[in-house]
Amino acid sequence: MKVDGISYRSVWIDPADGWSVRIFDQTKLPWALEILRFRELPAVVHAIRSMQVRGAPLIGAVAAYGVVLALKRDTSDEALEAAASSLAAARPTAVNLRWAIDRMLGRLRPLPPAERISAGYAEAQAICDEDVAQNETIGIHGLPLIEAIAAQKHGRPVNLLTHCNAGWLATVDWGTALAPIYKAHDAGIKLHVWVDETRPRNQGAALTAWELGKHGVPHTVIADNAGGHLMQHGEVDMVIVGTDRVTRCGDVANKIGTYLKALAAYDNQVPFYVGLPSSTIDWTLRDGVAEIPIEERAATELTTITGRAMDGTLATVRITPGGSPAANPAFDVTPARLVTGLITERGVCAATEAALLELFPEHS
Amino acid sequence: MKVDGISYRSVWIDPADGWSVRIFDQTKLPWALEILRFRELPAVVHAIRSMQVRGAPLIGAVAAYGVVLALKRDTSDEALEAAASSLAAARPTAVNLRWAIDRMLGRLRPLPPAERISAGYAEAQAICDEDVAQNETIGIHGLPLIEAIAAQKHGRPVNLLTHCNAGWLATVDWGTALAPIYKAHDAGIKLHVWVDETRPRNQGAALTAWELGKHGVPHTVIADNAGGHLMQHGEVDMVIVGTDRVTRCGDVANKIGTYLKALAAYDNQVPFYVGLPSSTIDWTLRDGVAEIPIEERAATELTTITGRAMDGTLATVRITPGGSPAANPAFDVTPARLVTGLITERGVCAATEAALLELFPEHS
Repeated sequence: MKVDGISYRSVWIDPADGWSVRIFDQTKLPWALEILRFRELPAVVHAIRSMQVRGAPLIGAVAAYGVVLALKRDTSDEALEAAASSLAAARPTAVNLRWAIDRMLGRLRPLPPAERISAGYAEAQAICDEDVAQNETIGIHGLPLIEAIAAQKHGRPVNLLTHCNAGWLATVDWGTALAPIYKAHDAGIKLHVWVDETRPRNQGAALTAWELGKHGVPHTVIADNAGGHLMQHGEVDMVIVGTDRVTRCGDVANKIGTYLKALAAYDNQVPFYVGLPSSTIDWTLRDGVAEIPIEERAATELTTITGRAMDGTLATVRITPGGSPAANPAFDVTPARLVTGLITERGVCAATEAALLELFPEHS
Repeated sequence: MKVDGISYRSVWIDPADGWSVRIFDQTKLPWALEILRFRELPAVVHAIRSMQVRGAPLIGAVAAYGVVLALKRDTSDEALEAAASSLAAARPTAVNLRWAIDRMLGRLRPLPPAERISAGYAEAQAICDEDVAQNETIGIHGLPLIEAIAAQKHGRPVNLLTHCNAGWLATVDWGTALAPIYKAHDAGIKLHVWVDETRPRNQGAALTAWELGKHGVPHTVIADNAGGHLMQHGEVDMVIVGTDRVTRCGDVANKIGTYLKALAAYDNQVPFYVGLPSSTIDWTLRDGVAEIPIEERAATELTTITGRAMDGTLATVRITPGGSPAANPAFDVTPARLVTGLITERGVCAATEAALLELFPEHS
């Protein structure tokens, strides 16, 4: 999407040299737009580990390029396997990272070493292009939902609410939850997005607000506490969120706090949609609350916060009393009964096993 | 309640001189325990305006002492009226502030100036003592609810969840929502409190965590987003919150985000109670969502945050992109249908007009 009028993806090959890999340093957003350049594998591993890149699809795409950069130094089998291991260890729980690495290994292992570099660039590029196409398709399928609301608003903006960051910064482009919003905005539909700040890591306030603002989408940051009140007063027409995992019955694991917004949407008859590529569906699970393990992250994510101090430098401050422990579950599960629909690359369906299998019959 | 083993109220007369007024500077909590001394009216006005004291009952009590300090300088009718005006203007929307000032005026206006100082101290002391007694009674009425849960936990701690600060720091002592919790803790019941940080002003993380910790009550700070997940997994036995205004039908206005916790409690069959003095009930209102105006506060409360920097100083950092607007509704309304019960100084009742009128027949 656009940053100050210029179109970007979140990872790309530098056009000047044709081989080095560029990304935005997402740990610096929204404070500074720093574009990093990778020429070697270790910098890629560091970027994944330190969350300079984050978001499952983007991590996978960057890791694919990491494999190629390792091959540029050494095209042997040993170097290929070592690069795969070191990338996989950078974020051990990221399913999409493992998937992208395995895809690269499957493509490159059978090739003679001399052919691996050019084939690797092509495969990494394909991973990126497929992600972009898939997300754009989610946007195309979600667009009519927003158009239908717009038709009832008689020129007033459609008010959407989103939680966390499921935008283009989390993918190679378009995003998942935000893809329909970008499609609607680019189609000239008047809209406005309520952006949950998304404590404790503030991905909404830091990343979603930044990317919507840079693309020119009207938005307002709110405390995570505010959404219910806004829905009670008719200020939200539709909720769209992303997801980390969906069960075959339609339960949705997403950033902590999503469940609370789904409850409020249900209580106020506000449609609640989830944008996702079908790779997010875990066909082995049925009951999300019972079966999806929830990552407990470091308490310091809650007890300290980083922002821009008055002198312009980045500063970290502690915001809880020293003697008070903190707990930090990172995700929650929204039961399917609260979900109006799932927006996938094959179309929109109800959050039920029957509807999912109708779109994805190969999983029957 | 206790701070490091010593019992305090949140406002008191200095025992050393018998006339100056002491408070905790709540803008410094939880970072520093600074006890201020007031000898003159202007310092009291400043303390109320700058939120060195906050919480409706505490503001009223401190303002009552402010009237007396003004009289110590000048006992004339003119001085009395001027003090009342300047205190009332410090927080114009605080109903309890106006109530305490009017009570002081009603007591002091008829008296000869020479008798006003001693009568004023007595009246301010009475306001404080009545607040403490009323809150302790809320605690006594709420205690059996916690005892009943404890009886089913077979020695495991009772897990309570609270939002914002309705503790002793918001009143003269005991608090409203926290009074039953302090009573239960002091009675030896094993309990643990989940403390919502309560964005954007963080009264939970800053004040509730501090006062629970200082009194020795086990607690854990969580993001406002986390409560629903905890309830889904059986980690919350009861929710208790305070309130700013309750309608005669039992709708509850409280700090923004309370409604979301009430929805989650209802969805998971977790009892949701509200602790309140009956002065909080607005008998003129029925439908809280439609009739209670919600204060929109400054966006800077959301876009910046103050904490303790690594060098120990207090620092304020900005946490949203410069170009992104923010909205900050300060309260929301929890419909009575989601409230299990109201804990008042006259006992516990359902959140219905009939049940409220049974406890308070004078409002029939």
